[in-house]
Amino acid sequence: MNIGIDIGGTNIACGMIDESGTVAYRKSIPSKGNREKTAILDDIAGLINELKCRAEGSAAAVGIGVPGIVSKDRDFIQYCPNINLSRLHIKKEIERRTGLAAFADNDGNLAALAEHEAGVLKGFQNAVLLTLGTGIGGGIIVGGRVIRGANGLGAEVGHMVIGENYYDCNCGKNGCFETFASASALVRHTKRLLDGPGASSLKGLEGIDAKAIVEAAKNGDRLANESYSRFIHYLGIGIVNLINILDPEIIALGGGLANAGEFLTGPLEGKVESLLLSSDFPHAEIKLAGLGVDAGIIGAAMLARKMQQ
Amino acid sequence: MNIGIDIGGTNIACGMIDESGTVAYRKSIPSKGNREKTAILDDIAGLINELKCRAEGSAAAVGIGVPGIVSKDRDFIQYCPNINLSRLHIKKEIERRTGLAAFADNDGNLAALAEHEAGVLKGFQNAVLLTLGTGIGGGIIVGGRVIRGANGLGAEVGHMVIGENYYDCNCGKNGCFETFASASALVRHTKRLLDGPGASSLKGLEGIDAKAIVEAAKNGDRLANESYSRFIHYLGIGIVNLINILDPEIIALGGGLANAGEFLTGPLEGKVESLLLSSDFPHAEIKLAGLGVDAGIIGAAMLARKMQQ
Repeated sequence: MNIGIDIGGTNIACGMIDESGTVAYRKSIPSKGNREKTAILDDIAGLINELKCRAEGSAAAVGIGVPGIVSKDRDFIQYCPNINLSRLHIKKEIERRTGLAAFADNDGNLAALAEHEAGVLKGFQNAVLLTLGTGIGGGIIVGGRVIRGANGLGAEVGHMVIGENYYDCNCGKNGCFETFASASALVRHTKRLLDGPGASSLKGLEGIDAKAIVEAAKNGDRLANESYSRFIHYLGIGIVNLINILDPEIIALGGGLANAGEFLTGPLEGKVESLLLSSDFPHAEIKLAGLGVDAGIIGAAMLARKMQQ
Repeated sequence: MNIGIDIGGTNIACGMIDESGTVAYRKSIPSKGNREKTAILDDIAGLINELKCRAEGSAAAVGIGVPGIVSKDRDFIQYCPNINLSRLHIKKEIERRTGLAAFADNDGNLAALAEHEAGVLKGFQNAVLLTLGTGIGGGIIVGGRVIRGANGLGAEVGHMVIGENYYDCNCGKNGCFETFASASALVRHTKRLLDGPGASSLKGLEGIDAKAIVEAAKNGDRLANESYSRFIHYLGIGIVNLINILDPEIIALGGGLANAGEFLTGPLEGKVESLLLSSDFPHAEIKLAGLGVDAGIIGAAMLARKMQQ
C-alpha cells in the first residue's frame, strides 16, 4: 500500500492505494491555501499519519501531487501560484512529520501517470491528459512514458498562449489556455455575459458554477450556450495546438467539466476537426478520462511506488 | 554516400552526403511549385540522376524532405500546401524514375535529425528546432529521438495558434505562429507599416526581404524596429509555449532569419525570460542552428541511411 496526496486549489485529497491502483480509503480536507506554510504542512502530515495508522504498518511511502512546478529530484516545490507552498522542501518537511518516505510531482503529470497505468490512456504510446478545473493541468506521454522535461517545467499546457483575452492569467500573462477553457474561465466569462442585457435562466442565481452553466446550456439557455460555445472554441484551439505539436493517439479530458460527458466531447470533436490542417487525416481521439477525481491520488501513490523500486 | 533532397517553397536543393554528414556536392533548382506534379517530379528525378552519375555507383539511397505531412511509412505525401505535391506516392514515383530506394519525411523533422546527429542539438535528450523561413518548420526531440507523432502530424509548430492576427494563415486559420514570426510574416507586417505615414529608410525600396528589414532595424530605422520588435514578441510567445509544453534543454533557430545572429538571440532571450512562469528557473537555452541551409539535405540523407539499416 502507498499513500497518495493530491493538493488542489480547493481541497487536499488523500487515499490509501494498493498495487493494482485500487483506492482502499479516501479523505479530503479544505486546502485553505493562503495560510502559513507550516499550518498547511501540518494538515497534510495529519492526513498521512491518520492513513498510516489505519494501514497498520502496511503503508510504504507517500506520493504528493502539487499544482505547480516540482524539482527534478521530486523533493522541492519551486512554484505553486495558487497555494502557499512555493520554494518548499516538501520531501524533508513531510518525512520529518510522518516518518514515511515522501516524493512530490506536478499533479497533471501524476494524473497522466494514473490514467496511463490504470485508466483511459492505458496501452497508448503517445497521449495527452488535460484536466479542466480551476486551471488547466496536463500530462504528456511520449514513447510510453510521462515526460517531465529538462527542468520540471513541462506539460504546463494551461499557460500556452492561444489568443487575447479580457482576463489576464494569474501567471501575469494574457491569453493563457486556462483563461479561456478551464472551469473557472467558463464561469468568469458567463458572469461577464450575465452583467449584460441578455436574458438567461442563470440571472440572479448565487454561486454559479460550471455545472450550472452546462445544465443551463443543455436546457437551451441562449446566454449559457454563447459562453459554452466560446469555451468549446478555445478548448478546440488549445487541443489542435497540441495535436500540431505532439500528434498524440489520444487526448483525455478530466476535471469537473468532464462530467458534461458527450455534451463536451461531441461539440469539441466537431470544433477540432474544423481547425485541423486537413480534416481527412486520422487524428487523436478525444475521450473522457477514466479515473475521475481519483486520478490525482492514484498517480501520487504510483509515484511513491516507482520511487521505492 | 546517400543523396539528400530538400524540397522548399522557393528552391529544391540536393546534395551527396557521406556517412559523417559531410556534403560532398550540392545543387539547387527553382521549385516552381505551381506546376503539374509530373513536371516537378521529373525535375527532382533529374537532380537525383545527375548526382547518381557523379557518385559513380556509390549512391545508396535517396532521402527527401517535404514541407508538409508525410505518411508514417515515409512513402506518401499527404498534405503539402505550398507545392503541388499533395496526395502523392513520392517513394514509388522517385524510385521508378531513378532506380534508387527513396524515403520522404517532413523537412522540419529531417533538419532536427541533422542538427541532433551533427549540429547544435548533438548530445541533447530533449530539444526543439525551429526553422524561420516562408513558414515556421520544426522538429522535436524527446528522449534522444525525433518524435513523429501518431499520424505524421507532429511538430507542425508553425500552425500553433498564439494570438489574433491581421493576416490569415495559408492553412485557413487565423493566429498561427508562422503568420507572426516567420520571415514572410516579418516582411508582410513591415510592408503594412510602410503603407502608413511613418518615415523609414525602407520606403520606396523594391523587393524588401527579411534581411533588408533586419539591416534597417540594426541601423536604427524606427519603423523596421517596430516591425522587428513585434516579430520578436510573438517568436517569444511561441517559444515559451513550447517551453511550457515540452521544457526542452535547448531550442535552436534555423532558416534565413538565423543569419541575424545575436540581433535575434539577444532580444529573444529577454522576451522569453519576461514570459516564463518564473524567470528564476533554469530554462531552455536558445541557440542558432549549426548546419545552416544544409540541415535539410543532410537530414534527408540521414533518413535514407537509417531506412536502409
